[in-house]
Amino acid sequence: MAQPPSPLASQAGPPREGAEILCIGSELLLGSILNSNARWIAEQLAALGVPHFRQTVVGDNQARLARCLREASERCRLLICSGGLGPTPDDLTTETIAHTFGSPLQERPELLQTIEARHRRGAMLPGSRKQALLPRDATVLPNPSGTAPGLIWEAVPGFTLMTFPGVPAELRAMWQATAVPWIRRAGLSQGVFASRTLKFWGASEPALAAAVAPWLQRSNPTLAPYAGVGEVKLRLSVRAASREEAEHRLLADEVPLRNLPDFPCYGSDDETLASAVLGLLIRTGQTVAVAESCTGGGLGAALTVLPGSSAAVLGGVIAYGDRIKREQLGVSQALLEAHGAVSDAVARAMAEGVRQRLGSDWGIAVTGIAGPGGASDRKPVGLVHVAVAGPAVTYGQHRRFLAERGRNWIRQLAVGEALDQLRRALLEA
Amino acid sequence: MAQPPSPLASQAGPPREGAEILCIGSELLLGSILNSNARWIAEQLAALGVPHFRQTVVGDNQARLARCLREASERCRLLICSGGLGPTPDDLTTETIAHTFGSPLQERPELLQTIEARHRRGAMLPGSRKQALLPRDATVLPNPSGTAPGLIWEAVPGFTLMTFPGVPAELRAMWQATAVPWIRRAGLSQGVFASRTLKFWGASEPALAAAVAPWLQRSNPTLAPYAGVGEVKLRLSVRAASREEAEHRLLADEVPLRNLPDFPCYGSDDETLASAVLGLLIRTGQTVAVAESCTGGGLGAALTVLPGSSAAVLGGVIAYGDRIKREQLGVSQALLEAHGAVSDAVARAMAEGVRQRLGSDWGIAVTGIAGPGGASDRKPVGLVHVAVAGPAVTYGQHRRFLAERGRNWIRQLAVGEALDQLRRALLEA
Repeated sequence: MAQPPSPLASQAGPPREGAEILCIGSELLLGSILNSNARWIAEQLAALGVPHFRQTVVGDNQARLARCLREASERCRLLICSGGLGPTPDDLTTETIAHTFGSPLQERPELLQTIEARHRRGAMLPGSRKQALLPRDATVLPNPSGTAPGLIWEAVPGFTLMTFPGVPAELRAMWQATAVPWIRRAGLSQGVFASRTLKFWGASEPALAAAVAPWLQRSNPTLAPYAGVGEVKLRLSVRAASREEAEHRLLADEVPLRNLPDFPCYGSDDETLASAVLGLLIRTGQTVAVAESCTGGGLGAALTVLPGSSAAVLGGVIAYGDRIKREQLGVSQALLEAHGAVSDAVARAMAEGVRQRLGSDWGIAVTGIAGPGGASDRKPVGLVHVAVAGPAVTYGQHRRFLAERGRNWIRQLAVGEALDQLRRALLEA
Repeated sequence: MAQPPSPLASQAGPPREGAEILCIGSELLLGSILNSNARWIAEQLAALGVPHFRQTVVGDNQARLARCLREASERCRLLICSGGLGPTPDDLTTETIAHTFGSPLQERPELLQTIEARHRRGAMLPGSRKQALLPRDATVLPNPSGTAPGLIWEAVPGFTLMTFPGVPAELRAMWQATAVPWIRRAGLSQGVFASRTLKFWGASEPALAAAVAPWLQRSNPTLAPYAGVGEVKLRLSVRAASREEAEHRLLADEVPLRNLPDFPCYGSDDETLASAVLGLLIRTGQTVAVAESCTGGGLGAALTVLPGSSAAVLGGVIAYGDRIKREQLGVSQALLEAHGAVSDAVARAMAEGVRQRLGSDWGIAVTGIAGPGGASDRKPVGLVHVAVAGPAVTYGQHRRFLAERGRNWIRQLAVGEALDQLRRALLEA
C-alpha cells in the first residue's frame, strides 16, 4: 500500500487542502449520463469527515485531462479519479497520469495474470494488456469485480491520486475494500462526521421544515430537509471529536425528531418503506401477497429487493387487464361495471382476492391511472386506489398524485403508498 | 442584451475555447443531491453544437468560488454558472463574480420592482433585496418563474459569464427563453452536433470494441463504447454543417453497426429491451404474461413502464414460493422435487403455466438465485433460468451472472435476459 501523503505540501501558493473528485469521460460532457459517481464519492467523503472542496468533469482528451491533473495537484491533498481505466483507446487515465507526473509505465505481472485469468474463455484483446500498466511507484488498488484495477500514488509530495473505474458497482466495491482503510490511515479526516437521515413518507417539505424550524438554525448538529420521491428526508449531521460523542449528540436530537406530532417517521438511513414492512412481517411471523394493476409488478419487486424477503413474501398476481382481475383474483364483473377498475371497491376486492387465493395473512392491492391515457373526468391521471386486506379487516385509501410528473413518478408513489398503508395496518394490528 | 464575446482572446497561454459549466452549492459537495443541472446543460450544449470541455462543482465559499471563476476565465469563452442566486446568506454567486472581475454591484430598479411584486402577499425577506444587485455592465437574464434573475456579462474581453438559479425548472425556462438565442447569436456553435446510441444486450465491451476497432480511430464521426447494466452501448457522434448532413452521415455508419456479425443491436437512443419487445407484440397483435420468481415483479414492472403497454401485457403471477408455483402456475410437485425451483424444467413449466392460465400468446418466466442466500454447490448465486413459451414452442436458457455484483444487479440482468429471449423468439416466430 502507498504511504499516506506527507502533511507538508512543498508548494508555493495557498497550501493544498482536502480532497477533490475528477470524473473522466466524454459521455459526461455530452450529458449522456448522470454523474452518480461524483455524488456517491462525495457522500462517502462526508461520512469519513474528509473535507471536499471541488468536483471536476473532463472528457477523454489527453491534453485537457493533463491540465486538470496539474491544476488539482496544486490545490488538494487527495484527488479521487473515476473513469477511463478500460481497455479501449479512449481510456487514457492511467497513461495521462504517468505522463503528467513524469513516471514511466511499468507492466505489473500480477495484474497481467489476473487479466489473463479473467479472459481464459476467450482470446485476450489487445487493449486489455494496457490495463496491467501502472506508473512505476504507484500501488495497485485491486478491483475484485472487474478487470480494470486502480492505483494509489503520491505523484507529487503531499499530493496523492486514486483511480477507480467508471462502472459504479466496481468503484463502490473498491472504495469500501481498499480506499477507506487508506484514507483513515492517511489522517485526512478532520474529526468524526456522522449523520442520520430520518424519513417521512407523504410529508410536505415546507410543512415539515416549519415544524423543525428551530433546528434549521443550528450549526452543529445541522439539520437539512430534502425532498425525495413521495417523501421528505431530514438529514441531521454532527461533527465531533470521537465516534461516541457524535453518536451521543445525534441521538439527543434524533429522539424528538422521530416523535414530531403530525409527522410520523418511518425509518432512518438505509431503511426503506419495504424494509420497514418486511421487518414488521418477519418479526410477527406473518406473510403478504400483492395484487397489482397500474404498478405492473413494481410493488412485488420493491418487497423482494431485500435478501430474506422470501420468509414473508409469498408472491402475487399482476392483474393488468380486467379479465385477469376477474379470473385470477375473483373480482366480480358486477363490481368492475359498477365502480370501474380504478375504485375503492375493486382495490379492496383485489386485496381480499389475492389474500384468499395465495393463502397469505395480508393482501395489498394497487389500481390506478398512471397515464398518459386511460383518464376520464371523474378519474384523472394520477388517481390511485390502494387497499390492504388483513386477518381482521380491509383498509382502503386513495391518493391523487401530480399527473405532470409522469407515469413513472405516479407508479413509484403508488408503490410507496401501498407499502405505507400496509406498514400502518401492521402497526395497528 | 450583452454583446457576443469577442473572437480574439486577449490572453497569454493556450487560447480560450468552448464552454464550461460551474455548479455552485455545498449540497453538491456533500453528495446530498445529484447534479442533474450539469447533465441537462451538457445535453443542451451538445445539441447546440457548442464545444464543452469541463464541468466544475464548488461549494458556497467565496474564496474557492473566486478561484474557480478566475481559472475558468483563462480557459473558456463561455462559463455557465448555476446555483447561489437565492436570498439567503450562503448565496454568494453574484457578489463573488462582481468582486472577482472588479465591478461594483448596482441595484437594478426593474428587478427590485419584480421582486417586490412577487412578495406582495408576504413580507419581503431581508435577503431578497440583494437579488436586485448585478455587476454594473452585466445584462439581466430574466427569470420568468422565480425571484432569482441571472446575468450575462463579458467580464473579461473574450470571456462571458451566464448565471442561472439552481432550481432545475427555473434554469430550464431561462435557458430556453434567453440563453439559447444569445448563444446562437454569439457564434459559439460549431456547426450541428448529432449522435446515435446503439445498444447491444449481453455483449462484452472488449469484444464489441474489437469488432468495431476501425471506427474507434475516426475523429468525425467518433464512436465510443460504454458498458451499461448487462449491455454495451456504442455512441456514434458527428459534427456537420447542417442537421441534414449530420443525419446523413450518422446513417452511413449506423447501418453497418446495426448489422455487425455476432453482435445483434436491439435498438437505439431511447429504445429499451422492453420497448423493443412491446413494439414487436403490438405490431403483431400478440399478448404476453409473466411468471416471476427471483425478480419478484421486476419483469412485469419493466414491461409496463411504457404507456400503452396494456395493449400487449395481460399481467402475470409472482410465484416467489414453491407453493405458489404449484397452485398458481400448475408446476408439478414432482418437477420441483426432481429439478429444484431453479431449473430449466421449472422455468419452462412456469412460462407454459402462465401462458395457459392467463390466456396469452406468450409466457415468459424467470427463476434464479439472486442471493445472498439460497445457493448450493450446483446452483450458485447468480444462476438464472429464463423460459419463453410461445404458440409453437418453448425456449429455455440459463445464464450465470456475477454473484459479486449483488442481488439487485442479478435481478436487473435477469429481467433483461428474459426480455431479450422474448425479443429473439418474437423475431423468429
